[in-house]
Amino acid sequence: MTDSLMHRIDVQALLDKAAGLDTDTGDRRLKQIIRRVLADAFRTIEEFGVTPTEFWRAVDYVTRLGQSNEAGLLVAGLGLEHFLDILMDEEERKAGLQGGTPRTIEGPLWLAGAPLERGEVRLDQDPESDAETIVMDGQVRDPDGNPIPGAIVDVWHANTKGGYSFFDSSQSAWNLRRRIETDRDGRYRFRSIMPAGYGCPPEGTTQALLDRIGRHGQRPAHIHFFVEAPGYRKLTTQINIAGDKYLHEDFAFATRDELIVEARREADPEAIARHGLNAPFSTLTFDFTLNREADHLPDAVVLREHATAA
Amino acid sequence: MTDSLMHRIDVQALLDKAAGLDTDTGDRRLKQIIRRVLADAFRTIEEFGVTPTEFWRAVDYVTRLGQSNEAGLLVAGLGLEHFLDILMDEEERKAGLQGGTPRTIEGPLWLAGAPLERGEVRLDQDPESDAETIVMDGQVRDPDGNPIPGAIVDVWHANTKGGYSFFDSSQSAWNLRRRIETDRDGRYRFRSIMPAGYGCPPEGTTQALLDRIGRHGQRPAHIHFFVEAPGYRKLTTQINIAGDKYLHEDFAFATRDELIVEARREADPEAIARHGLNAPFSTLTFDFTLNREADHLPDAVVLREHATAA
Repeated sequence: MTDSLMHRIDVQALLDKAAGLDTDTGDRRLKQIIRRVLADAFRTIEEFGVTPTEFWRAVDYVTRLGQSNEAGLLVAGLGLEHFLDILMDEEERKAGLQGGTPRTIEGPLWLAGAPLERGEVRLDQDPESDAETIVMDGQVRDPDGNPIPGAIVDVWHANTKGGYSFFDSSQSAWNLRRRIETDRDGRYRFRSIMPAGYGCPPEGTTQALLDRIGRHGQRPAHIHFFVEAPGYRKLTTQINIAGDKYLHEDFAFATRDELIVEARREADPEAIARHGLNAPFSTLTFDFTLNREADHLPDAVVLREHATAA
Repeated sequence: MTDSLMHRIDVQALLDKAAGLDTDTGDRRLKQIIRRVLADAFRTIEEFGVTPTEFWRAVDYVTRLGQSNEAGLLVAGLGLEHFLDILMDEEERKAGLQGGTPRTIEGPLWLAGAPLERGEVRLDQDPESDAETIVMDGQVRDPDGNPIPGAIVDVWHANTKGGYSFFDSSQSAWNLRRRIETDRDGRYRFRSIMPAGYGCPPEGTTQALLDRIGRHGQRPAHIHFFVEAPGYRKLTTQINIAGDKYLHEDFAFATRDELIVEARREADPEAIARHGLNAPFSTLTFDFTLNREADHLPDAVVLREHATAA
């Protein structure tokens, strides 16, 4: 494109001024990133012949996106959150780190401050008639396979309708959300209900965009985890329940082979009685391996805004 | 960057899938634009080493931007709206169109449906003690210099505090907003008050970003116009009052030399009396030249969402 407007002196000056690069005050890194983002936007508008009406439709979309509080959902759906994981994996690899349970995206639905409990923890507070009971357990280990006692397993998941407490007003506070402290053998254990896969809000801004580009907005059934212990890198991950229709078609690109877990059906009356249940249930087992923290590694603790329980 | 992640097959596949390019349904043009925007974002994140915490700060910013309804203001401040004008000018030039009053940005503050009036129209409804009265007039002409009777001059401007009716709740509905029909000589004429320059909301999301990159968020005093007549291209423009401190430092990049107007002070007692005033006032004169519409030209009518009076 030798006749591109991008080569014009006035357009280059506009980019410099818009990004604040003609002044010495302010955050130079941010200025450079903004200049890049703007130049990319200018080039895209020019090369695709984006019309003013198309441009303003996009601006209006950003407004609705913010107002519907779906920006975090959209960046998951567009693969940006997964790309951050790919980058972090690669940075760790270059820094010589290997092994450990794979990370995957956090998603926009965590809240700080879930009740901290020990022993067999119960997550399901709200009765759901058709819910399948699950009992999940596992061990948190260091890279040598030794248990990590006192690790915190922060778990959150959806109910049978795909809703999360605090975001779904029909659920009680902290339903299906707990922080579990591992025992002296590094073990955690909880009882809950089998979560359902779910989709983006059907009338939401994320789904509206996915519809226009011929994509579904569904996620397979999954359970979210933060796993933390002093001296170890914080792990942000999810497990997926094997067999889900969308297992390898997650709209948020979070599924990783190492994170797929088989739910084993338990129909033995003795086992049912031992768990204090009156119907068959499912068991899930998953062990987490945390990597050791080190100064030369990229920060595994990510600061982002979250909904609050207050 | 030979070792860029962008070359990896899984990253390219992620981009294709995220943009919906692995399916045949949906809007192919939108998919291609989204893929480009995503690839640019991935590359920027990788090359600048944008951390997850920085990334989420940007996502949170987008949320606040939408919620504060400042997306339209931000794209003006970042020069994107001015770039659309540069592009439209260039498209018209390539299509052989020359002359006519230069366009400049609309900004986010127009409303449809201002009162339609004829003759000497009065815009200022709300008394402002220190306001300087202005009388503005001019002619709407075709490219050959002939008057265009029945053209609509849709004018809107700020008060002495830089506020616009409907956005500033202290003003009455339609204050400083009118549609004026030109007379048989193509002339319009209105009485109003001298607008003040103004800045972005000081606590707003646009100003917050400008602060971080060392930029002010001020605009020089100006008056907005849409000028329309059947058979002519709609003109979106503004005039700037000469002498303003920010005349050539508009944060929204809207000033164009051909649009700067000198306010002439009128202190002659006879002129003051003739206008029914009791103090000196200022006069402004500006003639608009509209270009003729033609099928091969890019659409000068831009559809975007606006605040509504309802």
